[in-house]
This record gives sequence, structure tokens and C-alpha cells, in this order.
Amino acid sequence: MSKYFIGIDLGGTNTKIGIVSDKGEIIDKGTIITWDFPIPHLFKEELKRVIKDISQKNKIEISSIGGIGIGAPNVNMYTCSIESPPNLPWKDGINLKEGLEDIALVSATNDANAAAIGEKLFGCAKSLTDFIVVTLGTGIGGGIFCDSKLFSGKYGFAGEIGHIVVEQGGRSCNCGRKGCIEKYCSAGGIVKTALELIEKNNSPGSKAGMLAGECQPEGIKSISTNLKNYNPNTLTAKIIAEAAYKGDSVAIETFDITAKYLASFSNDLLNIFSLEAIIFTGGVSQSGEILFKHLEKYFKEEMLDIYKNKNIKLLRSSLEQQDAAIVGAASLVM
Amino acid sequence: MSKYFIGIDLGGTNTKIGIVSDKGEIIDKGTIITWDFPIPHLFKEELKRVIKDISQKNKIEISSIGGIGIGAPNVNMYTCSIESPPNLPWKDGINLKEGLEDIALVSATNDANAAAIGEKLFGCAKSLTDFIVVTLGTGIGGGIFCDSKLFSGKYGFAGEIGHIVVEQGGRSCNCGRKGCIEKYCSAGGIVKTALELIEKNNSPGSKAGMLAGECQPEGIKSISTNLKNYNPNTLTAKIIAEAAYKGDSVAIETFDITAKYLASFSNDLLNIFSLEAIIFTGGVSQSGEILFKHLEKYFKEEMLDIYKNKNIKLLRSSLEQQDAAIVGAASLVM
Repeated sequence: MSKYFIGIDLGGTNTKIGIVSDKGEIIDKGTIITWDFPIPHLFKEELKRVIKDISQKNKIEISSIGGIGIGAPNVNMYTCSIESPPNLPWKDGINLKEGLEDIALVSATNDANAAAIGEKLFGCAKSLTDFIVVTLGTGIGGGIFCDSKLFSGKYGFAGEIGHIVVEQGGRSCNCGRKGCIEKYCSAGGIVKTALELIEKNNSPGSKAGMLAGECQPEGIKSISTNLKNYNPNTLTAKIIAEAAYKGDSVAIETFDITAKYLASFSNDLLNIFSLEAIIFTGGVSQSGEILFKHLEKYFKEEMLDIYKNKNIKLLRSSLEQQDAAIVGAASLVM
Repeated sequence: MSKYFIGIDLGGTNTKIGIVSDKGEIIDKGTIITWDFPIPHLFKEELKRVIKDISQKNKIEISSIGGIGIGAPNVNMYTCSIESPPNLPWKDGINLKEGLEDIALVSATNDANAAAIGEKLFGCAKSLTDFIVVTLGTGIGGGIFCDSKLFSGKYGFAGEIGHIVVEQGGRSCNCGRKGCIEKYCSAGGIVKTALELIEKNNSPGSKAGMLAGECQPEGIKSISTNLKNYNPNTLTAKIIAEAAYKGDSVAIETFDITAKYLASFSNDLLNIFSLEAIIFTGGVSQSGEILFKHLEKYFKEEMLDIYKNKNIKLLRSSLEQQDAAIVGAASLVM
């Protein structure tokens, strides 16, 4: 039996490739900037190059690799192809099996499902039976475990929780709806919130900004922000988080708004599923206390009475470098 | 084996009691106005009186009744008791087993679960494996079937979908949250919408009403309504529906707003569960085309592309008099 497997976490910004042991440990990994390879063929060539590179570096024979598991948004698990993906560069889709099969058996699932499998097998969900892993990255997705089984629904698309509306008539989403949680709490959503706050602060009395009045914390009066010095096109959620830790008031308010939406959304999920925990993973979940301290507070404030003595948990991925999706993807072929 | 069972649908307005055959047919039924009996003991005496009454009328011996199944909001299925129910008269709770057990075996479940079981066994969900029954009454609840099994979650409270927020910072709900779907699309929510529209129309230019601007259809200019002649305390969703069919503009707008919220909510459920159908039951679902025509339209407009060729259905309970909850409750003891 093979001891090593490849796990690929294909994301809207980065694609992470890891060699994973049969114990769920990541031996080594590499990263590709997804949008640097807008031609499917060249993207797959680059994947192969990275796989060979990290294998060689760790003295692992390519022929000894037991399989390649891929977690990717909107992937069809039967064909391993992604058709018209909203957050990815390949307009005409991409088939991930063709080409990569030269190396080893290929299997794929939704990126959030991969993360959920990773958390269940090797992460902080080991002892949990009912939980949701929420991926907070370029987009937002959900991997749902009910009674220790991955839940995929009648058509296999369950967990498209990024497209739950949290703000009626709010920001337009690629999916066609308005006000989806993805437009508020993904990396891009956070940037949008900050830019709206800057614009609003720049034009007092104007009606700029689409944020509902109720979502803005009171008492923030001093408008001192360095964020407006950034190019709106290069501003990131990470930069905003760093600014918040340095006391930037717009950045702090941005994360307060983000935490409120995420807390409301988390209570929606709790009330629907009656679950034990929600586990956050992905880039945005690495923002730390600036997000989670307020998230916990708002989550408890809004919680139904029936759950108040149940110790419902909001967790952050316990897997090193938040690589649940890599480990979960690899476990598809273990 | 018994041929007859009692099914009780305990609701925030009416409590319906039916004798149900082993084929799921309601032989006869009676109704109690729930709030007429604020003392638990007297409510149970009245239940017993109705059970005896309809049994006698149909020449069914009490001793031949196989059991009493109860569907009720917030009921603990293990103890058959309801503790501090938000929409019911018994502040200190009620135990439904004590007293009724004199007649026959008693079993209870959440009212929405009872309705879902009824639809699955005898109604329009017979051939479905993945669906949600949404009860639209005094409150809003959900009975969820996944892969042909009732889904109850880790703590048994799954399906509290009335407490999903559809309007951030919106109307205050008994549950402690703001903007729950229950405050917009339940019977009381519909009345509230109509009253807000009347108030808004009475005071042009005022900021009365908490409805988001985006939710109001454009082009309604003539403000001719008979609804303002009603006492706000006695106005009901049924009266508003009747007014809408007669062309009352405020009533029509009220149902348009209701349909928009319900469509958005239905797409949330679809995106989370990847289901085949949503089945509506309860008093509000009897509003007919004034609600469902627009609901269908808005639902399709907002639907994710992946579902557009899947014929996802919005159904109305096919059980006579929308009595899925009675039949479902009875089936608990069959």
C-alpha cells in the first residue's frame, strides 16, 4: 500500500499542492498562483511540475504516489471537470483528470467538502459527528457532516452556503443573486466593505455605500485610516487585518461588520442543522482575534435559548497552515 | 392491529384533532382554539372531550384507538412536554403525556416534522427523497427529509428555519434575533407588512415602516385600500388575501413583498440542501395564487444556474385541508 498521496486545494487565488502521508501529515507543499495559468493545459503542466519537484526534493518516487485528490469549487466529482467556474480563469472549464492521470489515479470533490473530510479525519472535527466547515477565501463554501457522514444532497451540490442572502437587495453576486454572504465575508467582500467605509467617510452626508445603517457600530467617530493610501485594486483582506491590529479605525470597523454578518450566518446554520460546531478555514479565517473575538460575542448574543447550555463551538481549523483542504483532498485517494 | 389513530396538530392559533385510518385518511376532525385554554389541565380535558366526541360520532370505540400522535412546536419528543413555548399560552410549559395516556399511548414530535412525515407517507412527497416541508402559520417551521430520512441534527432541533434572518436588523423576533423570516412570512408577519404599508401610505414622506426600499415593487401609485378600515388587532392574513383577490393595492403589495422574502428564503434552502422540492403547508399556504404565482416567479429568477434544468419544485400540501400535520402526527403511533 502507498504511503504517500497528493492533495490539491484549487482555489480562486492560490492552488496549493501537498504530499500527504497516510497519517494525514503534509510532508511538503508548493503553491501556484491560479490566475497565472489561464490556459487549462498549461495549468495542468505546472501542477505536474510542482508535484515532481516536491516529490524529488523529498526523495519520493513518483511511481510510489497512491493517487491525486483534488478539492476545487464547482467540480463535478464524477468527471473531475469544472464547468464555467465563477471565480476561476477557465471560462470554458477544465478537466482535471486528463493529463494528471499520467502520474496517478485522480479523484476530485468540492473544495469545502475536501476541507470537511480533512477536519474529520485529521483535524479538530475528529470527535464531532455534526458540523460544517466554512471556507472563507476568494469565495465561501460549506462542507457539511451530519451524523458522521458527508452530506451532499439530492443533486450533489449541498453546501453552496456562500449563496445564502444576508442582505436583501445587497451587493450583486456572480451567481445572479443580491446580498449573498460571499459578497460580505469573503476576502473580496471585506475589501469592498473597507472601500465603502472609506468612500463614506470621504463624503460626509452622502449616501455612498450600500451598508445597512444597523450594521455599523456606533461611537466610531475618529476617521483616521491609512487604508485610503492603498490602490483599491491591490488592497487585500490581509492588509486590512494588519491595519486593524495597528488600530486603523476603518479596518477595525470593517472587521466588526464582517463579524456581525458571519455571526448571523453562523446562527442561521445552527438553527437549520442543530450542529455541534462550525469550523472556519481558508485565508480570511487566518485574520485572528480581530475577526473571531467579535464573531464569538455576536454569535452568543443571537443564539436561540435552546442552544445556550450546549456549548456550540466556533472553531478555527487546527490543521497546520489551515491546510485541511489539502489533507482532505488527499484522503479522497487514500 | 388498530385501524384508527388520533393525530393532533397543536398550533399557536388552532389545535386540530383528527381520527386517522391506517391508510392515512382523516375520518373526522375537531378544532380547539388554543388560547381559549390557558390552563394546561383544562386544555388536555378539552382535547379528551373532542377525541371522545368525534370517536362516538363515527362509532369508533375509544378502546380501539391505537395511539395519540402529537405535532407541536418546541416539543421534547422524549418527554412529550413543551417548555416555555414562545407562541403558546402555557408560560410554565405543558406535559402532553400526563392525562392523555388514560386514552392511549402518546407520542410527540415537532409540528413541522409531523407535517413532513405526513407528506412523505401519504402526501405529495411520497416519491421524493430530499425535501423540506415549510409550515407557514402563526410561526414558521421546517421538517427536513434527506435521503428519505427525517433529519433532526445532533440536538434534535434541526429545522428551526423560522429563525433564519432575511432582513438584517429587521423586525424583532420572540427568539431574540432581528429580521427572522417568521416575522415577515408568518400570518402575523403578513399583517405587520400590511399595517406598515398603510401607515406609510397615510404619512407620505415619512420614514415609517421598516421595509427595505428594494422590497417594494415599483409602479404602485394608486393607494386605494379598504384594509385601513379594519381594526389592526383583528386584521388577519386571510382577510388581506381576500382583499388582494378583490384588487386592494395594499393587500397585493403585501403579498408581493411576502413572496419575495419567501422566494429568497426558498433559494437559501435549495442552495444549502440541494433538494428536490419545498412543500408549503399551514394557514398562510392556503392563500393561493396571490402568493404562489409571484413566489414561483421570484424563485426561478434567483435560482443558481446549476439548478435551472433540474425542475426543483415549490409545492403546496396535497393533503386535504392541508392536514399533513394531523396525518403525520397520527403516523407517529401507527
